[in-house]
Amino acid sequence: MKAVVLEEIGKISMREIEIKEELSPNDVRIEPKCVGICGSDVHYYKYGKIGDFIVNEPMVLGHEASGVVTEVGENIKHLKVGDRVCMEPGIPNFQSSETMNGMYNLDPEVKFWATPPIHGCLRDYFIHPGILTFKLPDNVSFEEGAAVEPVAIGMYSAKKAQIEPGDIALVMGAGTIGIVTAISALSSGCSKVIITDIKDDKLDIVRKNYPSITCVNAAKENLQEIIDNNTTNGVDIFFEATGARNILATFTSMVKPGGKAVL
Amino acid sequence: MKAVVLEEIGKISMREIEIKEELSPNDVRIEPKCVGICGSDVHYYKYGKIGDFIVNEPMVLGHEASGVVTEVGENIKHLKVGDRVCMEPGIPNFQSSETMNGMYNLDPEVKFWATPPIHGCLRDYFIHPGILTFKLPDNVSFEEGAAVEPVAIGMYSAKKAQIEPGDIALVMGAGTIGIVTAISALSSGCSKVIITDIKDDKLDIVRKNYPSITCVNAAKENLQEIIDNNTTNGVDIFFEATGARNILATFTSMVKPGGKAVL
Amino acid sequence: MKAVVLEEIGKISMREIEIKEELSPNDVRIEPKCVGICGSDVHYYKYGKIGDFIVNEPMVLGHEASGVVTEVGENIKHLKVGDRVCMEPGIPNFQSSETMNGMYNLDPEVKFWATPPIHGCLRDYFIHPGILTFKLPDNVSFEEGAAVEPVAIGMYSAKKAQIEPGDIALVMGAGTIGIVTAISALSSGCSKVIITDIKDDKLDIVRKNYPSITCVNAAKENLQEIIDNNTTNGVDIFFEATGARNILATFTSMVKPGGKAVL
Amino acid sequence: MKAVVLEEIGKISMREIEIKEELSPNDVRIEPKCVGICGSDVHYYKYGKIGDFIVNEPMVLGHEASGVVTEVGENIKHLKVGDRVCMEPGIPNFQSSETMNGMYNLDPEVKFWATPPIHGCLRDYFIHPGILTFKLPDNVSFEEGAAVEPVAIGMYSAKKAQIEPGDIALVMGAGTIGIVTAISALSSGCSKVIITDIKDDKLDIVRKNYPSITCVNAAKENLQEIIDNNTTNGVDIFFEATGARNILATFTSMVKPGGKAVL
Repeated sequence: MKAVVLEEIGKISMREIEIKEELSPNDVRIEPKCVGICGSDVHYYKYGKIGDFIVNEPMVLGHEASGVVTEVGENIKHLKVGDRVCMEPGIPNFQSSETMNGMYNLDPEVKFWATPPIHGCLRDYFIHPGILTFKLPDNVSFEEGAAVEPVAIGMYSAKKAQIEPGDIALVMGAGTIGIVTAISALSSGCSKVIITDIKDDKLDIVRKNYPSITCVNAAKENLQEIIDNNTTNGVDIFFEATGARNILATFTSMVKPGGKAVL
Repeated sequence: MKAVVLEEIGKISMREIEIKEELSPNDVRIEPKCVGICGSDVHYYKYGKIGDFIVNEPMVLGHEASGVVTEVGENIKHLKVGDRVCMEPGIPNFQSSETMNGMYNLDPEVKFWATPPIHGCLRDYFIHPGILTFKLPDNVSFEEGAAVEPVAIGMYSAKKAQIEPGDIALVMGAGTIGIVTAISALSSGCSKVIITDIKDDKLDIVRKNYPSITCVNAAKENLQEIIDNNTTNGVDIFFEATGARNILATFTSMVKPGGKAVL
Repeated sequence: MKAVVLEEIGKISMREIEIKEELSPNDVRIEPKCVGICGSDVHYYKYGKIGDFIVNEPMVLGHEASGVVTEVGENIKHLKVGDRVCMEPGIPNFQSSETMNGMYNLDPEVKFWATPPIHGCLRDYFIHPGILTFKLPDNVSFEEGAAVEPVAIGMYSAKKAQIEPGDIALVMGAGTIGIVTAISALSSGCSKVIITDIKDDKLDIVRKNYPSITCVNAAKENLQEIIDNNTTNGVDIFFEATGARNILATFTSMVKPGGKAVL
Repeated sequence: MKAVVLEEIGKISMREIEIKEELSPNDVRIEPKCVGICGSDVHYYKYGKIGDFIVNEPMVLGHEASGVVTEVGENIKHLKVGDRVCMEPGIPNFQSSETMNGMYNLDPEVKFWATPPIHGCLRDYFIHPGILTFKLPDNVSFEEGAAVEPVAIGMYSAKKAQIEPGDIALVMGAGTIGIVTAISALSSGCSKVIITDIKDDKLDIVRKNYPSITCVNAAKENLQEIIDNNTTNGVDIFFEATGARNILATFTSMVKPGGKAVL
């Protein structure tokens, strides 16, 4: 089949590749229709690795996908050929203690698309567990379907935060994860969400699409002052989405006593 | 001052009444602008009692109020004369263990407006603890302000339910409390809310104002079937807002295993 | 192999039986050493069915087991031949949404030992998923190991109750599940646990073994009065372990406002 | 009355002092019987201040007290003269939003004994709100009663941690707060608690009194290795009780993914 292959640092080709996969009774075969390009795809392209994950041989990129089901295993009841779907790209060991405890994403054995040595989904078709494949409603486009994966990270943060209706949240960082966290917090009961970054081009995406979210450019504006003006005693919930460790130093002055942080 | 007084069963008069209240340093004086008529006001008018609460002497009605601050005690910092406000009508013993544990509404000593022998707020002015008086934003009208009290009951139900983003809720009963619970659940993270009643005039209020809430007339439609079609295995959260004890018998077939009930 | 077989209502035999099971890479083979007799085993023996589960053909009994590992699949890392173990007798579909959400016990497809048509474990050996097989510490006997299954039900109730340190709990019913719930609640942070039944022989087991648990024979003593004397305003947590629906009628008078019920 | 007065840095005297306090209807008068000396008392003695709290004039020390009730206000129902009691030393504004939300300890206006300019309780008698005064059971000595205040901090940490039965906890620091946190975690459902410090004299207190708690001298032993040997993937809960900010750097390697920190 054809695939988008990261051959080595700085070199991507679209070419034939042979990937052996067998459809088990719990699997479906999917033809991707739209695949997002994640920061991690770009990072592998530029640097050939992320932490301990090193691209040692050609790897198909892409893990944010929507598509159409083209074949279903015999145990699959919730999907049929032709269904429009999106996917969870991390496949855990289904018999791990993390999975059994409802945290399959934390299984150390998880196999994540386009994370070496696992191939991604930028290819003609792939086989995937049915339980990790979700039917799209008719009013969700393939483009939106491909965005479900990052949005799900925001929703999971909102779930972890145990938001109480009316909480005020602060999201540090307006990258993709920061933005999806902000909109998830807002739709999960927060009465106000403040998002901050030091780059206006990122904040502009929020300003344009989600005018009810308060944007703060911390390089130009006084974040602490804005927090003080918008809250009694600090925000209820602090979401860290910058990846910068030292951001935690700002934690205690921003969050009200008794507040929460999701790191 | 003038007040709306329930003289006895079936007899209300608007007349002069003398009510002795003193403004303590923690209090504010309020001139009401809009007061909702609750089912409990009607019930006292018709039957002269609710449970153990019996109207033995003339009582001012009304407990859902908005108004304007006309005087503030010396300790009050968050309010000033002229502020538009709404109020919590239940005044607890501030030094009870329920209050100290964050559940002042459950204090057995709570003094609730228009619940014998406590006068309500349908009068020229009243004195109220500042901490139970809340400034209205400019974009909230006095009519909306008077509705904050019942809406707060819905919000508290939503808070108690510990909603996880995406939960599906079923609200039994489309009276005022059922409706405010339904809209609170929806704005607190539920992805779908189903409300059911046996009277279309009540459901019509929801149909007209909140078209995203699913209405079911259980006298005409098969509620169980609708639950089955809208959920995998039952709803995540069941809100009881009918007051009918036997409604609980329907509980287990409607809620998914592992689901929750707020009674 | 040899097994304890329920042939039909009222007839058990110990005889040869052929059960085809294959050791998959995620499985272990276990030789049972001690198997508890559950009320459900007795119920199948007496009545041939429990609800919709009907014994239509000979079935091996027993689901509360401890034993020794005699063979391990190639993926098994946490167990080795000779390990003393106990087991979770309900085997879910590992790729169900219930399992993925941390509630495999609620998977409708769960295969539970000695529940028709699944054979139990009163036999020479059986094959079981490694992830549902747990190594016993050296200081836990085989007899204690066989009791882990019912105790786990008590522990799960205690977990669901979200006990806060110092809570007072009431357990309705002093059968096996009531007793394990009571001791689990006590060891999970409750400061006081009251257990009630109408049979002294059951309560005597608690009185003898767990003197710190308060026993109430509701047929002889006034439960409500005892609750009132031991709490300010009712218990914090109410555990239902009788199976009698009408017990719920007692709920509201026993539990404090704001309290919780685990049903 | 007589009192133990911190006159200035390094100078304590026991002398007559006049403190004007009036018994309100919600208050009790208490004669202290045993008062613990807290690290904060010592700190004020040595340095004359803690953070922004500066001892500008003579101040009575002591805030960990037990005693006997000698007078009760007219509203007090749960206490009577002669009752043996312990106290919460932080008196909040009972009409603050923190108090109303169940977190009176976080009220910025809280008046805490022996924190300037509030006098402590090392004196002949003092007046205190009844709701913050707790009857001691007969089997609790005055010495134990004086220890309730620090133990309550440990219990509150355990409550905040939302411990699930069986969790494994790590407590950083074996000072008083570390020790009371460790024993609170153990009695609140943790199956194992590991406490670490770099001073053996502190750990020895734990070793001697609470042999079921695992002690680690991080200056001599490899904490990470001990964590790895005692857990699958890190502890479930991390309690910070050293006050050293940089301890947080060790957080992520000690706690399992999905675990919790109480800071």
